[in-house]
Amino acid sequence: MIILGIDPGLQVCGYAVIEAKRLESTLIEAGVFRTDGKAELADRLCQIAEDIEQVLDAHQPNAVAVEQLYAHYKHPRTAILMGHARGVILQKAAEAGASVKSYAATRIKKSLTGNGRASKNQMQRAIQTVLALPDIPEPPDVADAIAIALCCATENQHVKL
Amino acid sequence: MIILGIDPGLQVCGYAVIEAKRLESTLIEAGVFRTDGKAELADRLCQIAEDIEQVLDAHQPNAVAVEQLYAHYKHPRTAILMGHARGVILQKAAEAGASVKSYAATRIKKSLTGNGRASKNQMQRAIQTVLALPDIPEPPDVADAIAIALCCATENQHVKL
Repeated sequence: MIILGIDPGLQVCGYAVIEAKRLESTLIEAGVFRTDGKAELADRLCQIAEDIEQVLDAHQPNAVAVEQLYAHYKHPRTAILMGHARGVILQKAAEAGASVKSYAATRIKKSLTGNGRASKNQMQRAIQTVLALPDIPEPPDVADAIAIALCCATENQHVKL
Repeated sequence: MIILGIDPGLQVCGYAVIEAKRLESTLIEAGVFRTDGKAELADRLCQIAEDIEQVLDAHQPNAVAVEQLYAHYKHPRTAILMGHARGVILQKAAEAGASVKSYAATRIKKSLTGNGRASKNQMQRAIQTVLALPDIPEPPDVADAIAIALCCATENQHVKL
């Protein structure tokens, strides 16, 4: 099963493609999309749409897992703008025929470390161990995207057992 | 100049296509898109994408004008969900090559009635007069979409003069 995890954002989106097998998962590709902060909002959303389409085309994921947004952000305007980016991502994923999943940050952390309030560093170390990576995954957007994909893989196994 | 006005929403989107000429504007088509409230968010966003694409294909608007969202909504979760729908709309409009414009509700009201706090009924009557419609435009989503398109037409004329 191929899973694409996405940490959504208007400025930077982290993404990670993993292959989830019964007993282990493998990291296939991970990276970030960036948009030009000086460009118009609609053009930035087009850039995100193009970038996500390329990854969807290249890897044909069975599932796309996207982190949920929160309603209690300190900066509601930022949350609404992130909603614009997240909307484009969800739409493209559904259009590509993938099963679209949303996970809250606490659920992702709990799934990977057993602790819903795990620190960034604890999460990075857990990812490194699970995927047997030579280094700690960076930048944070990529680490978050990998964590989301791994959470989706784990939740999916629970359903099967 | 063909202008598509959109009152964005996840449940209901109002839309209106007008032809804006130097001294008068004509209403070409208006209506609403609805999504199934029981469907998954990603599938609802796909429905909105398909509906907006049909209107864009049919009318090839030069400009698409979309009402702005507010960061001070009582229900931030609703505002974030509306942001998802608005993101898909802006992305599709830019992809179609239209000039994408955003207007705040107060600016739209002021542009049409001279009063940034005009009531729904004052707005509906102003639209009826400007477009010489036999009846008051309804439902509210359609009236709002027409008002947004007319605001865009007026602002555009100001630039030209």
